[in-house]
Amino acid sequence: MARSKKADEKQATLQLAEGQGVPPHVLKLRKFLQARLFQNSILILIVMNAVSLGVETMPGIGTEYAIPLLRLDTFFLTVFLIELALRIYAYRGQFFRNGWSIFDFVIITISVFGAFSVFRAFRVLRVLHLVTVLPRMRVVVSALIDSIPGIMSVGVVLVLILYVFAVIGSNMFGDDHTDLFGNIFTSMYTLFQVMTLEGWPDVASQVATTDRYSWIYFVAFVMIATFTMLNLLVAIVVRVVEEDSNDLEGALVRENADLRDEIHDVHRDVVQLQEMISGMQREMNTALSDLTVETRKARD
Amino acid sequence: MARSKKADEKQATLQLAEGQGVPPHVLKLRKFLQARLFQNSILILIVMNAVSLGVETMPGIGTEYAIPLLRLDTFFLTVFLIELALRIYAYRGQFFRNGWSIFDFVIITISVFGAFSVFRAFRVLRVLHLVTVLPRMRVVVSALIDSIPGIMSVGVVLVLILYVFAVIGSNMFGDDHTDLFGNIFTSMYTLFQVMTLEGWPDVASQVATTDRYSWIYFVAFVMIATFTMLNLLVAIVVRVVEEDSNDLEGALVRENADLRDEIHDVHRDVVQLQEMISGMQREMNTALSDLTVETRKARD
Amino acid sequence: MARSKKADEKQATLQLAEGQGVPPHVLKLRKFLQARLFQNSILILIVMNAVSLGVETMPGIGTEYAIPLLRLDTFFLTVFLIELALRIYAYRGQFFRNGWSIFDFVIITISVFGAFSVFRAFRVLRVLHLVTVLPRMRVVVSALIDSIPGIMSVGVVLVLILYVFAVIGSNMFGDDHTDLFGNIFTSMYTLFQVMTLEGWPDVASQVATTDRYSWIYFVAFVMIATFTMLNLLVAIVVRVVEEDSNDLEGALVRENADLRDEIHDVHRDVVQLQEMISGMQREMNTALSDLTVETRKARD
Amino acid sequence: MARSKKADEKQATLQLAEGQGVPPHVLKLRKFLQARLFQNSILILIVMNAVSLGVETMPGIGTEYAIPLLRLDTFFLTVFLIELALRIYAYRGQFFRNGWSIFDFVIITISVFGAFSVFRAFRVLRVLHLVTVLPRMRVVVSALIDSIPGIMSVGVVLVLILYVFAVIGSNMFGDDHTDLFGNIFTSMYTLFQVMTLEGWPDVASQVATTDRYSWIYFVAFVMIATFTMLNLLVAIVVRVVEEDSNDLEGALVRENADLRDEIHDVHRDVVQLQEMISGMQREMNTALSDLTVETRKARD
Repeated sequence: MARSKKADEKQATLQLAEGQGVPPHVLKLRKFLQARLFQNSILILIVMNAVSLGVETMPGIGTEYAIPLLRLDTFFLTVFLIELALRIYAYRGQFFRNGWSIFDFVIITISVFGAFSVFRAFRVLRVLHLVTVLPRMRVVVSALIDSIPGIMSVGVVLVLILYVFAVIGSNMFGDDHTDLFGNIFTSMYTLFQVMTLEGWPDVASQVATTDRYSWIYFVAFVMIATFTMLNLLVAIVVRVVEEDSNDLEGALVRENADLRDEIHDVHRDVVQLQEMISGMQREMNTALSDLTVETRKARD
Repeated sequence: MARSKKADEKQATLQLAEGQGVPPHVLKLRKFLQARLFQNSILILIVMNAVSLGVETMPGIGTEYAIPLLRLDTFFLTVFLIELALRIYAYRGQFFRNGWSIFDFVIITISVFGAFSVFRAFRVLRVLHLVTVLPRMRVVVSALIDSIPGIMSVGVVLVLILYVFAVIGSNMFGDDHTDLFGNIFTSMYTLFQVMTLEGWPDVASQVATTDRYSWIYFVAFVMIATFTMLNLLVAIVVRVVEEDSNDLEGALVRENADLRDEIHDVHRDVVQLQEMISGMQREMNTALSDLTVETRKARD
Repeated sequence: MARSKKADEKQATLQLAEGQGVPPHVLKLRKFLQARLFQNSILILIVMNAVSLGVETMPGIGTEYAIPLLRLDTFFLTVFLIELALRIYAYRGQFFRNGWSIFDFVIITISVFGAFSVFRAFRVLRVLHLVTVLPRMRVVVSALIDSIPGIMSVGVVLVLILYVFAVIGSNMFGDDHTDLFGNIFTSMYTLFQVMTLEGWPDVASQVATTDRYSWIYFVAFVMIATFTMLNLLVAIVVRVVEEDSNDLEGALVRENADLRDEIHDVHRDVVQLQEMISGMQREMNTALSDLTVETRKARD
Repeated sequence: MARSKKADEKQATLQLAEGQGVPPHVLKLRKFLQARLFQNSILILIVMNAVSLGVETMPGIGTEYAIPLLRLDTFFLTVFLIELALRIYAYRGQFFRNGWSIFDFVIITISVFGAFSVFRAFRVLRVLHLVTVLPRMRVVVSALIDSIPGIMSVGVVLVLILYVFAVIGSNMFGDDHTDLFGNIFTSMYTLFQVMTLEGWPDVASQVATTDRYSWIYFVAFVMIATFTMLNLLVAIVVRVVEEDSNDLEGALVRENADLRDEIHDVHRDVVQLQEMISGMQREMNTALSDLTVETRKARD
């Protein structure tokens, strides 16, 4: 999570840094868009929109106040579209280089299409704009997205297991149990259910009426799928532990390098000392032998 | 957990520390309230009250001995009220600054209201007083409460996902399946069930009778919700691992700072040595050259 | 796990150490009991007994071969009893100080009672003798048992939650749903089911027919219970991580203490050097001043 | 996982190293088999085969295009057989010393038998060849396999628990509930279901109709099995954490050994300094006393 937070801050810094050489009214607009007051106003509008979309679903109120609710929804959508337009104008090219901006663009675009088509339900995706506005949720969602590559490869193995068992299931039980194993798609859906462990004994017992040894298939699938999913969980935990461990090892190496530098300095000074003493000894020997010569001369 | 334990001890210390400048009979009362014997008596009364509330629910015994059980319950409640009053008298302002005291105040207050209203069931909350009396349970409950902020933000994301899917579900399946997706509330309840994976294939197959592609909705929700919940678990584990790792890094830095101090001392002494030797060399040179002069003079 | 293994080895060492001052035939017997061949024979007999107990349950074979199977079972029991008697004779007092020995004593005693009573099913506990014979399983079971105290306190909180909700449930739904919440015991069993998330929507929807707001009760219980259980899991992981972290910190302190000792030695030698040089300087000064005096005298 | 990756690279290195003293056309063949282009072609063929096996299961298309699909399947199988033959020819003895090669050999052999028998479903195992071709999946599957020994011993304990409970269940409920506890095998299957927590209240309530206290059996089994499985998960996480911790301790010891060497060098030089100074002092004393003698002689 720490990493995502940092990446987030970095992005914010970049936006400021790239603000040089930009006309002053655009800079002013950017400041306005990033101001707390504006962000909080958008936040309140999103929450109100979420509530209005919820109220719409209520049979009584939803039909009675259908017109005002529709007007309200159009208002919210207009505001979000204006905000999006302002942000695109203010940031231009940069806008489409920021992941969160693209996210906003996509959900609001879908929302507009939702408003003018049969897929009215998709208007609610607009509520996800909340994630972009609230920094803490941005961190959490970043962390969620960051953890995907780590489990991707285990996920692919899981899909492979699902596919192989689905083909076997379709071949073996497909003719007798069309509703469960009729074709590769129904088989995969059935096995997805079994994978969540939900109602698997019912599926197994239905199939067991025609295939006596089908329990081997189900027990094997439950065990293999559960074990693989367990490793998926472990993979996430382990990634974090290893990151932490590497940080620690880095700190250890860094700290000890400092110590080594100190010791090097001491060593260098000790060696210098040795040289000083050698020099002094040499000097002393010369001086004393000179003196002895002088004294001898004096004696003579 | 370690942190909670410490916080607990700190609180206890504060209570003692703030005991200065308090009339002696109040100090005596505090000592009495904190005495082992008193605490254990309260503990036994709580357990007995818990048992009596349990016995009340038994159809046979509960109705036959209704009157004595009611009297017993009134007795227990009175004792807990007196204990609470004594604690408020003994600690005054401090009482309401201690989280556990407030907790006791709230559950016993609810319990009193429970005894005089239709919500008789809430009298049992009194049993939670056990947590305050047993130090080990206080630690566990503190740890549970401490782990909430760490998962709060993931929890908010989970609620957002639930809400968005609930609105979509209400819009798409609401007309045909009023019992499951009739309005935003029933939709959220249905999706909460699906989130626990309990009976989700039944819900999905019921909806599939009218919407052929509804399986996409359910499979997507099951996968997104499960993945997010998994991250919730990971978030808790990671928080602990990171705390531990930081402790270790702190220990490393502290230990190495000690070593560095030692090496510094050695270095300082070596430098001093160099100065001593330089001084000595200078002195020796002066003395020897003086001597040479003298000797020369002597020779002449 | 590492700890359990160590404890195990320690125990083994103790047994050997205490073998002094014991008559030679008893020592010989101990050696025989600990010999690989004997242990493996017992191991094979346990597995055979497990199989015979399994065969007994098969309706066809079990009734047809009832007499030989009974004889076989008596034979196995006799062998295990003799083994137990020999071990008690060989180790006497020590026998009952070893946890595993007591474990064997208990399961074989239950097994004997099982053989002569209606609780014939309990004869199978004898198979658990396997754990004592196989060192690796001893380690695993030790680890399982070792992890209990760590989760005990969370477990107590869980039971408290269960009890409080059970009393509330009995009071609120007891009259209308006797089968689910009739008294405190049925309520606790129902809530235990809900806690495993198994079929909780069915329970909730049955209660919802009479109590409209009962969903609050169930959703609250599911969330609180799941969250607490999650912390139970975290508690185990954390305990291991912390143990590991403490080991590491210990290693760090130990290693750095070694380094400090080395640096101390260097420091001591440097200080000694300073003294040597001071001494030498003093000597030199004396010698040179003496010499100067002599030279002056010589000159005069 | 890191370990598996290393082992994998090591294996690859070995294959190259053993390539010495091999006829040039075989070396060329090996190079061809390991070439990116060849590997990718095989990869595409496996995916196409997977799709064709999926299409076969579709009732409409599968029966209409049965003949072309069969031809296609024969083509794919032939290609995989030729690839296998080439690899055996190119690597000979080495082929059967590589785990992944044996894996390919087994799944393709099963696939051939599948094509000519009633077990047509097993032809799909061929798709698992994907794991060998994609290095990242090889790493994941290696990690999965590597984690098995770590949980093996806990698994054996779990099987033992299952067996003991199955025998008890067969003895106690076998006569009244033949479908659930008829013999040791049905009992084990029933308890495996209970272990996944799926529908256990239904099983328990069915048995409860004849045995009033059977809930003790089920609650005990659910708690013991869940607790043991939880430890299985913990065992995996702990293994990784401990490995990491050992790595860190190794780094610490290594780093500190370096520091100790440095300090040793300093120490050695300081001791040398002491000797130098002692020598110098001795020399000086001799020279000065000689000089004094000379001076005295000169004076006289």
